[in-house]
Order: sequence, then structure tokens, then C-alpha cells
Amino acid sequence: MAKDKKKQPRPKAETPKGFRDYFGADVTERKVMLDRIAEIYHRHGFDPLETSAVETVEALGKFLPDVDRPNAGVFAWQEEAVPGGGSGDWLALRYDLTAPLARVAAQFRNDLPMPYRRFAMGPVWRNEKPGPGRFRQFYQCDADTVGSASVAADAEICAMLADALEAVGIARGDYIVRINNRKVLNGVLETVLPMPASKEQDSHHEAIGQSVTRAMRTYTAELLLSDDILRVIDKFDKVGKEGVRQLLTTGRKDDSGAFIEGIGLSEDLAAPVLVFLTAKGDDNAATLENLRAAVGNSEIGTEGVDELTQIAAMLKAMRVDEDRVVIDPSVVRGLGYYTGPVFEAELTFEILDDKGRKRQFGSVAGGGRYDGLVERFTGQKVPATGISIGVDRLLAALRAKGLAGAETGGPVVVTVMDRDRMADYQAMAAELRAAGIRAEVYLGNPKNFGNQLKYADKRGAPVAIIQGADEAARGVVQVKDLVLGAKIAAEASLDEWKSQPAQTEVPRNELVAEVRRILG
Amino acid sequence: MAKDKKKQPRPKAETPKGFRDYFGADVTERKVMLDRIAEIYHRHGFDPLETSAVETVEALGKFLPDVDRPNAGVFAWQEEAVPGGGSGDWLALRYDLTAPLARVAAQFRNDLPMPYRRFAMGPVWRNEKPGPGRFRQFYQCDADTVGSASVAADAEICAMLADALEAVGIARGDYIVRINNRKVLNGVLETVLPMPASKEQDSHHEAIGQSVTRAMRTYTAELLLSDDILRVIDKFDKVGKEGVRQLLTTGRKDDSGAFIEGIGLSEDLAAPVLVFLTAKGDDNAATLENLRAAVGNSEIGTEGVDELTQIAAMLKAMRVDEDRVVIDPSVVRGLGYYTGPVFEAELTFEILDDKGRKRQFGSVAGGGRYDGLVERFTGQKVPATGISIGVDRLLAALRAKGLAGAETGGPVVVTVMDRDRMADYQAMAAELRAAGIRAEVYLGNPKNFGNQLKYADKRGAPVAIIQGADEAARGVVQVKDLVLGAKIAAEASLDEWKSQPAQTEVPRNELVAEVRRILG
Repeated sequence: MAKDKKKQPRPKAETPKGFRDYFGADVTERKVMLDRIAEIYHRHGFDPLETSAVETVEALGKFLPDVDRPNAGVFAWQEEAVPGGGSGDWLALRYDLTAPLARVAAQFRNDLPMPYRRFAMGPVWRNEKPGPGRFRQFYQCDADTVGSASVAADAEICAMLADALEAVGIARGDYIVRINNRKVLNGVLETVLPMPASKEQDSHHEAIGQSVTRAMRTYTAELLLSDDILRVIDKFDKVGKEGVRQLLTTGRKDDSGAFIEGIGLSEDLAAPVLVFLTAKGDDNAATLENLRAAVGNSEIGTEGVDELTQIAAMLKAMRVDEDRVVIDPSVVRGLGYYTGPVFEAELTFEILDDKGRKRQFGSVAGGGRYDGLVERFTGQKVPATGISIGVDRLLAALRAKGLAGAETGGPVVVTVMDRDRMADYQAMAAELRAAGIRAEVYLGNPKNFGNQLKYADKRGAPVAIIQGADEAARGVVQVKDLVLGAKIAAEASLDEWKSQPAQTEVPRNELVAEVRRILG
Repeated sequence: MAKDKKKQPRPKAETPKGFRDYFGADVTERKVMLDRIAEIYHRHGFDPLETSAVETVEALGKFLPDVDRPNAGVFAWQEEAVPGGGSGDWLALRYDLTAPLARVAAQFRNDLPMPYRRFAMGPVWRNEKPGPGRFRQFYQCDADTVGSASVAADAEICAMLADALEAVGIARGDYIVRINNRKVLNGVLETVLPMPASKEQDSHHEAIGQSVTRAMRTYTAELLLSDDILRVIDKFDKVGKEGVRQLLTTGRKDDSGAFIEGIGLSEDLAAPVLVFLTAKGDDNAATLENLRAAVGNSEIGTEGVDELTQIAAMLKAMRVDEDRVVIDPSVVRGLGYYTGPVFEAELTFEILDDKGRKRQFGSVAGGGRYDGLVERFTGQKVPATGISIGVDRLLAALRAKGLAGAETGGPVVVTVMDRDRMADYQAMAAELRAAGIRAEVYLGNPKNFGNQLKYADKRGAPVAIIQGADEAARGVVQVKDLVLGAKIAAEASLDEWKSQPAQTEVPRNELVAEVRRILG
């Protein structure tokens, strides 16, 4: 298999490029966070699903919803075709958790309860160029409801997302879940270029030289929502209203002076898009009123506003206030991918960026409603809606706020003064553990006692236990408070530190009580 | 990438051959079990490590310790060599958690605390022929101590394993951790064919026509411990003492009458091997005495018995009795792979096999001491010892004993009688959840109420909530005890069931209290 590799005397001890290892607290903090999210999802009736990392390329298809990584590829290989063994299929590592859900929903459609609420947490893989902080394996955490056309499913997921953010420690007021609806944008565009109602009207478009496919005829708006327009709308966060207007029409000079060409819409076509993007009012009622005016008589637009109105009512019934989940038409991420409601969760507190400047933390989750999920496999449209939390970003946010601190303290380290009395030291560690205290015996070469204290330091040990022959003979142990010791060392002179006031001698049978006193 | 695939109208909704999905309780039960094990490992000072699924083939090497799956291959592929992008390296999915540990221990040897205690839990992948119950992705759960030559590390791991088994619910008396030592076997063989002490003696072996390499000279015993002998010893569990004697010497007829050739040792050479395998006495002291007699003056053998003696003493100090962890020379699994102490955990209770016959559950974990871990990368020998729990087997055992039952109950299902009052139903579910009760609203098409009850049944719902227009007007809800309902349905006639005694009407504001009463 590795035929073309040169013979090397020793292999390199390296992760492949773009991959990394997670040590200790890295693992624990993420686990604590995901456990809290899982508990919220579970309480909302969502069931865990764990698919395998490997899928057939055929089943995965091309389904990447992540607008941030449009060029992401997959890691794939072909199985050897062996009689009774490999199938010759192309296999690949999953690139998200949605494509496997689609496969599962199709494969088990007769067995699963429908609607099917499921959550999934686990690594996904992207075969793309790694960069700083951008890895080729990372965690996703998704919740989706498959098989429900009701926007009650969307409302529920947004409320659940807000609950999940609070469960991991984000305070109310430090986040906002915002909801938009692709159908409203479609409707807004219809007010400008009405939907063709008949063959006669179709010919109008053919007359203007467009190749109109049967599918594209359904809504004229779809015709306009080309990738170009969606790409412009997607920049609303960055360039603002005026920037979007320029990019939709004649073009724009950016801060560096470079000119970015516009996509050539008339001002009349651009205007309603801008009205839509800035329709947010003081509260949901005002926003919905603005949107209703913007979509006029458009059927799809009215449907979209009705959906948002229902979602707002349901959130209210669930006592989820607008300071937690709010209707906001300026949410543009994913409008090109999703078919109905679109959600985004943002953290609103400020952190310092690399250059020490304050900025809002920003998006940590996104999602929405999509229809094509199972259709690829079965030909049947199955409505679905879901949310994906950016695990690494949310964890980074918790760390920035000092909220990721799982109990990650080091163990009590029992040092070894006398190699022959290893059993005694292990008895001490066992007693501490039996009392629920994390503890270990130093297992390296005990010759150099300084090394043992260095080890305890590297382990983040709060306490070291010392018992030499003298202490053993007298039936006592030395208990060294390393946290206090470090404080004294930092603040006092070396001489003062040498007097070791952070070390106390206690009878052997008071070991556990003394350690408990120091830790408590 | 999938160039040679035929164009197909619809992809197949199937997992690749040998892979599977885990639903609901499958996921939860495994998670609860691993969480309990992780807590024990953490309390013993072990830190979690999560390496990526993907390693370079170069770093993985060939290091398979699992004697049950000697022919296991890896899933591997070559990266495209792209300037600034892919490296052209061969990459592969990890086939165990030990090879990545070796890479980590070498890569981070200057940063990690040494000795390094780490545990790891996660999927591994084997590119081998799948079979019934044999999958190409499965979980492993390992704990290892790297960088300690002290058998205190071995004793600690065995005690920890016993604690872990009890933590997941295996009762004391239902398991036994057994310890053997490769060095004792080496020593036993030395008593027959003594170690060459000088060049002169070396020539003796050359004289008998053996090609003796420099490395093989270290212990003559190594010369004997060819794969052949280890393969025979490995069958001790199945064929017993007499069977091993026959296989070591002239051969054996098995139950089917087929003759299996022996490996041609003389009876004199075979005898001490048999003494070793059957050296277990009534207690550790007796076993150690038998072993000491068996190794005679052999240096390596004495060292092995000394190690076991120390391990026994340390276990005693940790108050781990011999009914939990015991010295037992009949443990043969892995003797060929490991270099010192070898461990195995067996579940001793009986279960019924496929054919309804009683049999002991058997092995659920194994491990031992090995030296080659980091040497491949750095050239330096780094002693290490570890244990691997068979996650699927242990989980199967817990299920067989009815001990895997995580809280996997279905949610309370709020049914939908009136589509326009979705907000009311969601308010009910939200109230239940706020009281800590798992609850969801039915999100399918509400037209057919029978479908809603079927759904509740499929979800394993303990309670269904019903509120039609009439109940809403009167300010009440119907609370249906589905568990009681199912009991009545099973025991009573359909007529009696129709009177629905398991359904009660309560004021709307007593909803939560009534559900609590039923669940409690």
C-alpha cells in the first residue's frame, strides 16, 4: 500500500498536516459542554444517533451546506474488490452530520418514528487546505427534525438552541437567536417581477433571452436568486445596506480602493431586497408588519410572513422572550441553501481580537429548513429542519468568558522517598481515591526528589504527599500545599519559601482529612 | 474521484458493508458506561487524550497487538500532492488507540509529564472482512502508563480495571482480573536450555545448526518462544494441559478426529511449560511459591516472579483482594506480544449462548507491559503498560445482566387535536420540560389521531397529553397513562380497555403535577 514511499530508518512522529491532538482539559471541557447540550436536546424529545465515520461516496453525494467552506472536499478511497470481501465501492469520511442523517432517514424510513427528532455529535472530516485554526477534522453538534412540515418544528429548535446556550453557561443577554425566512425574500422579489401564471407569460422570459428550465419556472423569484444575488446578500453583515445596494447594481469601491463589479440589477430590482434586509422593527410585531408590507400580495411572501408570525406566537407561548429569540430579516447566512426559515445564534458580548481590539464574538450556530434531504434517495420530498452548533467556536467563547472550566485539576501526587515502600505509597493513593479525591503515586525514577516536585508541578497537582523513612518510623506524613506554596514562592523571597510554611506534618491516619482540608 | 462509478438515478441508502448506525439507547448506554469508566480513570490520575482518526501510514506502522484479529488491515489512501496543499503522504484510519499513543508519546516527549498516564476512548477502524457481529468500526477504551518501568504501574492498572468493572455495575464476584508474566515463562524455558554466558556457549547453538542473530542471543528462551510455541500456549484455554503437551510434542487428534501436528519439542522441554501453565495455587502466596520453584535459578525467571510478588503486595496494600485481582499463570493471551506482566479481565457469571446453553461470559479486557512503543520513532526504549476494555463485549455483558439501563425512557407526547392551537400545545411541553420532564409536541400531520397514539407508542412515551376544543373551553387536559394503558390492554378485554381507566382529566394548571404523579 505504501509502495512508493522511500525506506526510512525511523518514522516521523507527527500528526498528518491539518490534524491535531486534544489533551486533558481540551477533551474534558468539550465533553462537559456537549453533555450539557445533549441533556437539553434529550429533554426536548431528541434521540441520539451515531452513524459511522465512513459512508459510500454514493450515499454522501454533494450536499455541503456550509457556506464558509464551499470548496471543501472529502477524504475518499476505493475498496479493493475481493470476492466475499471488499465491494469495490468508493468510501469516504463524512464531511458533515446532515448527509448521514439523510441516508439514515431514507434507509430506516419504515422503522423510525416520524417525525424523527435526532441529535448527533461527533467529528467530521474535510479534505481541504489546512490553515491557522482550521483543521481537517473537527466536531459538529447537530439537532434536526425530519418529516415535519410544521413551523412548530422550527420554533421548537430555536427555543431549544437558546436553552442549550444557557445550559452551557452563556448568560441571557449575551446571546441572541435570530430567525429569517427564505420565502419572504422570494416573495419580496416577486413583488418586483411577478410569478408567471401562464405559458404566455413564460414566453416573456424566453423573449429576454434566458434559458428557462421547467423547474426554474415555478417561481420567477428563483430565477433572480442566482448565486450572484445570494453572494451579495451574504455580504450584508460586512458591507451594510449601501454596500449591498452598490453590489446589486453598478459596483462598489472597497476600503482598499479596489473596485468590485456589481451584478447589474436595476435600482428598482435592488430596492425591495434592501427593504427586506432592513425590515427589523423594535419588536417582532413591528418587524412582521414591515415584512407584510414588503411582500405585498405575493403568495409565497405572505406564506413566509405567516410562518414567521406563527413562529413568533409559538415562542411567546413557550415563554421564550424576544431578547432570546427574535425575528430578524438581516440574517442572511444560508438563505441560498435553506428553503424556509433560517436561524442563526450570535454571541453578543465583546472579546479582544488578536490585535487587542474589541469585537463581538459573533455566530456560534446556524440552521434552517430544507427539503431535499431524503429526496435524493427515495424521490419523495421529506421536509426537515435543523441546527448545527459550531463546537469549537462555542468552546472558544466559553473559554474567553472563563466558563469552560470543567473540574480539570491535577491529582494529589504521592511522592516516593523510598523505592521499597511503594506499597505504602499506593495505599495512601488508594485511601485518597476511596474518599473521592483524585490521586496518584509518582511512577518515574524516584532518585531525584526535585524531579518529583517538577512532575507534580507539570501535573497541576494541588497537593504532594511525602513520607521518608523518618516519617514512616514516627507514623506521620508531610502534606505539601502546592497552590499555597506557589503563591508564597511568587510573592516572597527564596529564603522565606525555603521555610516551607505550606507544608504540614500530620499523623498517617489523618492524611485524608488533611488533604480534604487543603482542597476544600 | 468516483470516475469509474456508473451513473445511477438514485443513490442507495445503505451503510457501507461492515458499518452500522447506533440509535438512541445504543448510544446512551455506551456513553453512560464509558463515562463511569472515565471517572475511575480520572480519579487514578489518568488524563484523557483524543487523537485524530487519521494518521500517516508511516506513523501507524505495523503494531497490531490484537491477537484475535491478526489479519486486520487498515483503511488507507494517498493524499494528492498539491503545492501548498496535500503532501502526497499515505494516510490511514487508526486501527487501535495504542499506535496513536506511541506517536503522541514520541512527538510530545518533551512536553508531557513523564510518566504519562492517559486514557482514550473512541472508534477504531479495521479493513477486514465483516461478519456477524464483527464490524469494521468499533469502540476501544484504553488506559496506559508510558515511561514507568515500575511494576507499581501494572498493579495500579489492574486495581483500576477492577474498580472500573464495579463502577459500570459488575458485582464483586462476577469478575476476576488475572495477572501473569512473560518473564516467568522465559525463565521457565531457561531452566531447560540455559542462557549462553559467553561466546563459547554461543558456538554450541551454532553447532546445532541454528542461525542465531545477535538480538536473539540475549535470552536463549527467546529462541524457543517462537510463534509456534506461543500459538500452542494460546490454545491452553481450549485444549487444556494434555492438549498443550501433545501439541508441543508429537501432535494431537481433535474432537472431530482430525490430526494436528505437534511442533516437535521433547517431553523434557514441554514439561516445564506445563508446570508453568498450571502453577496456580490456592492463593497468591502458593502460586508464587510454585512459580519460584519452576524458574529455579533463572535470572529472568526470578525477576518475573519478584515482579509478581511485588504486584501482589501492592494490590494487598491497596486493599484489592484476591477475589478481584489474582496472580494466575494460566493467562496466556498476549504472552507473545507483551514483554512483562500480562493482564486479563474475565466475567465469571453464566449467560445463555445462541443455543440456549449456559456458558461463562468470558474475557472483557486485556493488556500488559510492552517496550517497543516509542522506540520505533526515537530509538529509545520507553517502558509502558496498559489495558484495553472491549467496549462492545462489556456493554453486551451489562445488557445480559440488565445493567445497561440508562434513563432511556421516551418523552411525554403532547398530542395535537387542533392544528391552530399549536402554540398551546407547545406551551404544555415547555412547562413539562421546565419541570425537568422530557416532553415533546407531536409534529406530524395531526389529522389522524390514531397515528398520534401509534407515534407515542413507537417513541416509548410513558404519558400522552390530549386537549381538544371542548377541554380547552373547560380549562382542562386529558392525561393518558400509556404504561398502565398497555398493561390493561394486555390483561383485559378490549371493552374494558375502551373505558380508558388509565386516562384522567385534570385542570390545565395541574398538568405538570399530574404527569409527575404518573411518572413518579
